Amino acid sequence: MVLEEKENKSGAPAVEMAIKILTYLSRYRNKNRTLAEIARDLNINKSSCHRILKVLLDYRLVSYDKNTRQFSLGSFLIVLGSRASEFNDYLKIAKQHLKELAETTKQTCVLVEPIANNRLVYIAKEEPEAAVRITVSIGQSFPVTSASFGKCYLAFLPEKEAREIVKEVGIKQFTDKSITNVEEFFQSLEVIRKQGYAVSFEEHTPGVFGISAPVFDNSGSVRMVVSCIGLASSVNEETINFYADKVKTTAQKITAIFSDM
Amino acid sequence: MVLEEKENKSGAPAVEMAIKILTYLSRYRNKNRTLAEIARDLNINKSSCHRILKVLLDYRLVSYDKNTRQFSLGSFLIVLGSRASEFNDYLKIAKQHLKELAETTKQTCVLVEPIANNRLVYIAKEEPEAAVRITVSIGQSFPVTSASFGKCYLAFLPEKEAREIVKEVGIKQFTDKSITNVEEFFQSLEVIRKQGYAVSFEEHTPGVFGISAPVFDNSGSVRMVVSCIGLASSVNEETINFYADKVKTTAQKITAIFSDM
Repeated sequence: MVLEEKENKSGAPAVEMAIKILTYLSRYRNKNRTLAEIARDLNINKSSCHRILKVLLDYRLVSYDKNTRQFSLGSFLIVLGSRASEFNDYLKIAKQHLKELAETTKQTCVLVEPIANNRLVYIAKEEPEAAVRITVSIGQSFPVTSASFGKCYLAFLPEKEAREIVKEVGIKQFTDKSITNVEEFFQSLEVIRKQGYAVSFEEHTPGVFGISAPVFDNSGSVRMVVSCIGLASSVNEETINFYADKVKTTAQKITAIFSDM
Repeated sequence: MVLEEKENKSGAPAVEMAIKILTYLSRYRNKNRTLAEIARDLNINKSSCHRILKVLLDYRLVSYDKNTRQFSLGSFLIVLGSRASEFNDYLKIAKQHLKELAETTKQTCVLVEPIANNRLVYIAKEEPEAAVRITVSIGQSFPVTSASFGKCYLAFLPEKEAREIVKEVGIKQFTDKSITNVEEFFQSLEVIRKQGYAVSFEEHTPGVFGISAPVFDNSGSVRMVVSCIGLASSVNEETINFYADKVKTTAQKITAIFSDM
């Protein structure tokens, strides 16, 4: 087994394209798209795109409207998704912990997972019952070097691996509080490792704070990140510490699910 | 666009394999499987299987347990599935009609769709509140020539296409009531076309009846089949006619959703 092996190129480019097409069609703004639009936006050769769509259509992973000539996500994905949801029992339990965290902190709480191309994706969210709250879209992804999620994820990777990723992805300046100096960035990761959680105070989005703690799988590798995000204007050092404590406890509870598996 | 074109071979074999792997892992008995098991059961070359699994893993369409070395459906499928569910508004409305049908007939009601390889798949089900009832698994598929679903689907295809499919798939004898003579089979399809519904009385499963009616898309092609299935011992000609009437009406209501789209 060489599953952990790093490869620069995908060993199955058509499969990767198919997944990119599905991910693309899963965005609200791309709900219905023509072949030409998909090929253009994903920078895929039109005839490859057509061949892949044909197979996805055959198996109802996409559907096709003859009148508008648009593709959209297909019904068989609902079947696969609901089965995946049944099989991923851990996610059900994790969501319960996330809900409790949202109730305790009265902030939006999310679970974030790494996917390909050094990106993180929102896999679950729980929002508090508050008139004004931060919201995110499940399925949205962003570079692994972004926000408190990314800092937290990188902090708990082996440093060599984290350095390679940062070199590849780069650190983007989102606000004037973003840390963009690589050495400063790695110093901040060391602090995160020591205290067991990451804080971003307007480093990614002006007016927004994030607090993240790592969830480990049963082999001890960082598997996902649990976070609470909210309005920077609503917190002070004391509340940040309170939330950090709760986020850490929740991350530990979710880690415990994996160690039971 | 040649999307309607028939091709014997898939234009994207790796994508087809990837879908087969996901479908395989979506069955309860295959929930957790090793690379060797997947390659063996799907008759795929082990190294191709490995390459495809690697990409599916990268994008979390599958997950991998390092300890057991088993693969299972991944969390990103949940994201794609829930988005597909949001986008396929018709299915939500269709399910509502299916629920009403189950309440009226007090029988198990299903929606069946064609997928690749001339198969039909259960895409939705509603069960009545009864102590003894027939149940099916969403996602399970079967040859398009089976049961009342298949007869109904084939009856509303252009006859030339239906004949080609029957030639390719064959008609399997499931019980001593199954129609296996091709000409007799096509005569029964003519009756179905005239009356607007198909009945199978123990033709597929001993002790079970099925009544099916076609749902058409906005171009007038048969898009899915709505059916009610139950215990043959619980019905007589009168109840069969009553159910047939309700199934037809439900199919018409679901067809109307598409004509509004």
